[in-house]
Amino acid sequence: MALYRTFRKIRLQDVDAAGIVFFPKFLEYCHDAYFEFLEQEGLDLAAGISSGPYILPLVHAEADFRAPLRFGDEVEVIVATAVAGQSSYTVRYLVRKRADQTLCCEASTVHAAIERTTFKPMKELPERVCAILKLQYPQAKP
Amino acid sequence: MALYRTFRKIRLQDVDAAGIVFFPKFLEYCHDAYFEFLEQEGLDLAAGISSGPYILPLVHAEADFRAPLRFGDEVEVIVATAVAGQSSYTVRYLVRKRADQTLCCEASTVHAAIERTTFKPMKELPERVCAILKLQYPQAKP
Amino acid sequence: MALYRTFRKIRLQDVDAAGIVFFPKFLEYCHDAYFEFLEQEGLDLAAGISSGPYILPLVHAEADFRAPLRFGDEVEVIVATAVAGQSSYTVRYLVRKRADQTLCCEASTVHAAIERTTFKPMKELPERVCAILKLQYPQAKP
Amino acid sequence: MALYRTFRKIRLQDVDAAGIVFFPKFLEYCHDAYFEFLEQEGLDLAAGISSGPYILPLVHAEADFRAPLRFGDEVEVIVATAVAGQSSYTVRYLVRKRADQTLCCEASTVHAAIERTTFKPMKELPERVCAILKLQYPQAKP
Repeated sequence: MALYRTFRKIRLQDVDAAGIVFFPKFLEYCHDAYFEFLEQEGLDLAAGISSGPYILPLVHAEADFRAPLRFGDEVEVIVATAVAGQSSYTVRYLVRKRADQTLCCEASTVHAAIERTTFKPMKELPERVCAILKLQYPQAKP
Repeated sequence: MALYRTFRKIRLQDVDAAGIVFFPKFLEYCHDAYFEFLEQEGLDLAAGISSGPYILPLVHAEADFRAPLRFGDEVEVIVATAVAGQSSYTVRYLVRKRADQTLCCEASTVHAAIERTTFKPMKELPERVCAILKLQYPQAKP
Repeated sequence: MALYRTFRKIRLQDVDAAGIVFFPKFLEYCHDAYFEFLEQEGLDLAAGISSGPYILPLVHAEADFRAPLRFGDEVEVIVATAVAGQSSYTVRYLVRKRADQTLCCEASTVHAAIERTTFKPMKELPERVCAILKLQYPQAKP
Repeated sequence: MALYRTFRKIRLQDVDAAGIVFFPKFLEYCHDAYFEFLEQEGLDLAAGISSGPYILPLVHAEADFRAPLRFGDEVEVIVATAVAGQSSYTVRYLVRKRADQTLCCEASTVHAAIERTTFKPMKELPERVCAILKLQYPQAKP
């Protein structure tokens, strides 16, 4: 299952002196997919950043690197799921080779939801974002 | 305590449309400090990458973003500690504002130790790297 | 007239602290379009770079910046023409806003044609590249 | 002769799949040296960008690439000269290998001088910038 899927080709300048994608680029690929997804769903991120009622700063990111990617490789970048936290949400990503579905990277980013004027955590996550991300709520343990 | 400390100034092009450092750049700052440290201790990384007896691929990276950085901010990037794992080691980093020591980012990277010819995990971590990183071994629990 | 036309959206991280695309990015956009074009025409650039009979190093690049671009702007990047030189060729590019065709950047890159083994300039430009780029030959002056 | 000279080491991630510095990076190196120079002379560029009386947008950039650079190479980046134009000035740069002074890149950037409020070209170039850059005025031809 995937919320969003996009394709890209590894560029000349994305790889490093070892001939493989430099690791922070993977996080850039994931973030690009996340923003592409939100924009495609109608969010105006440029306006949101400069004057929206809330901001969604990235407070954590992590990635496991499973297999290297090289210049010319075609990949799919998948925004897989989004899970609600306390005034925050976590988005999970996969990067796979398009040819044989080799899993190259699993990543996640955590976004805080902050009111712009008070700079306080929002009591409820922004409705529009929740709807687009089909935000899952972790079940209470019995 | 720190293994290595370096200073840099946030450049015009390191910040994004929100006016703050784009998050994957923090990991780049940490990795730059790590490589600077190894090179300063005499490791020839360019030679190592192309023909050394082992490779040390990055298999995991993560970061907590505590406070934003803006164009012109001066920061210190600290390689704090390195801890041994199973055929791997974890390096921890801090990024602080130089002016008031505000903690902006805590990060870590995990590096696997792989024999170049067999592509198998090394039984012992490379001695030279252990010495430079003053590698700590987690104590066995009684 | 255009040899190739591609579209992209200015990303968060493409702009700098002044809120506009950092100038070397324009050259990256042009080069991305050039490579996309060659690959789409069937050239295997990854193989060419590592083992082809010739190399085509970039020996000159220049750009005029006519209008700024901001996060969220949609642009078309045009590979406009290619003109033969002495053991080299020049590719010209345009970057325009998609909405109103504002010209934002005019650029060019010059590529030398070098034999891989001898490292000497090629006497004739590589046929395949000439065909794809519909290479124009400047007319001799009477 | 040089207005300013700075040293840097080519990083892992500065090179591309061909193992050499990706060409727009050279322009970034030059621009970094230019900004470092201005800041060291006391200009507060972050403040200038957001609220100074004038802006100095880059309107042209060009570079000749003479020799490739690889991971680990140490270079000096030189801000060589600055020459006044009509409501603009041109800054020239050299990038040389530190070891043997091989010239790797010659570049220049042209900066327009614009009044922030009227958005008109300034009649005179900003005095402070002229002084720092030791701006040369082309001699009138007899």
